[in-house]
Amino acid sequence: MPRTAPPGRAAARTAAIIEATHTLLREVGYEQLSIDAVAARAGASKTTIYRRWSDKSALVCAALLARSTSVEELPPGAGTLREDLLALALSIATLAEQEDVPGFVSLLAAAQKEADIAEALRSGALDPLRRNCRDVVQRAIGRGELKDSAMSDVLFDLLLGHTLARSVVQGQALSADDQQDFVDKVLLPVLSARG
Amino acid sequence: MPRTAPPGRAAARTAAIIEATHTLLREVGYEQLSIDAVAARAGASKTTIYRRWSDKSALVCAALLARSTSVEELPPGAGTLREDLLALALSIATLAEQEDVPGFVSLLAAAQKEADIAEALRSGALDPLRRNCRDVVQRAIGRGELKDSAMSDVLFDLLLGHTLARSVVQGQALSADDQQDFVDKVLLPVLSARG
Repeated sequence: MPRTAPPGRAAARTAAIIEATHTLLREVGYEQLSIDAVAARAGASKTTIYRRWSDKSALVCAALLARSTSVEELPPGAGTLREDLLALALSIATLAEQEDVPGFVSLLAAAQKEADIAEALRSGALDPLRRNCRDVVQRAIGRGELKDSAMSDVLFDLLLGHTLARSVVQGQALSADDQQDFVDKVLLPVLSARG
Repeated sequence: MPRTAPPGRAAARTAAIIEATHTLLREVGYEQLSIDAVAARAGASKTTIYRRWSDKSALVCAALLARSTSVEELPPGAGTLREDLLALALSIATLAEQEDVPGFVSLLAAAQKEADIAEALRSGALDPLRRNCRDVVQRAIGRGELKDSAMSDVLFDLLLGHTLARSVVQGQALSADDQQDFVDKVLLPVLSARG
């Protein structure tokens, strides 16, 4: 009889391995992360890990992609574009606080050399934000506040850029006041200037 | 008699070492850069390098700071805020093209762990841009196009964020058309909305 774990236990083991990978990415970054350490942290054998993922890069990609499906949807919306933008900007500030910035930057460095990591980073970290931006713009179109659905790309670039410039490069916290300022003094003027 | 090189030759040797450091940062990134490789590339002895810089981090900081004094001043200015913003946005696009993005990201990763690198990166890469933003805003104030000198920080964050979001994270080229779009559809609406 082949030694395979029952389905429920296999899923729990996979979840533990993915979780351990995220923890180690935060703690030591991509460069220093090892399959040995993931196995020890997850209480799994290296064989179990290698049976599913061929190497560190594949495991990290799986962890990034697993995250993309667990990102929160936008709240139902309180009725105006400004309120939706505030909710979105605050959720990004919370995310930037929870995530470890050094871990993210180590992945960004790995992404410059490995196309798979770049692709997983885009799908896992950027696509959820892109989807949220589209939702906010579509709701505003539905309410008659905006007309042009291409605004969603503009919004995405501005939010991503703001987060990177402040949090990643300058090491500044994204306070609630700063995020409100960004909504009122940057996002709203740009979006309303363009329809 | 102590064996010291004549002043002119010492300066030329320093310049060669700094230049070799920049080249290797572009080619292999911070993590892989070694004093051995810098010495070989610059045609200098390791002793010469260690006499001036205590370690790799100190040498890389010196190279970053050397760059900050060699950044171009803004051109005289063609007479309007829009033209100055276009010139600035295009000069950033040229810089992003010349610099090696993976090299920059490897420094950003190192900066998360070493405060000296973070500080040198700020001074070498960000302060020149900050100074250019201030000049553009001050000229616009001089011409009566803007009133608020705090606009220069807003401009700095937007330009830095746009460059990071497009070039560093999404790996997109900053074309002249895109930069003009950014000036007309983001920078000008934000700056003029705020005075």
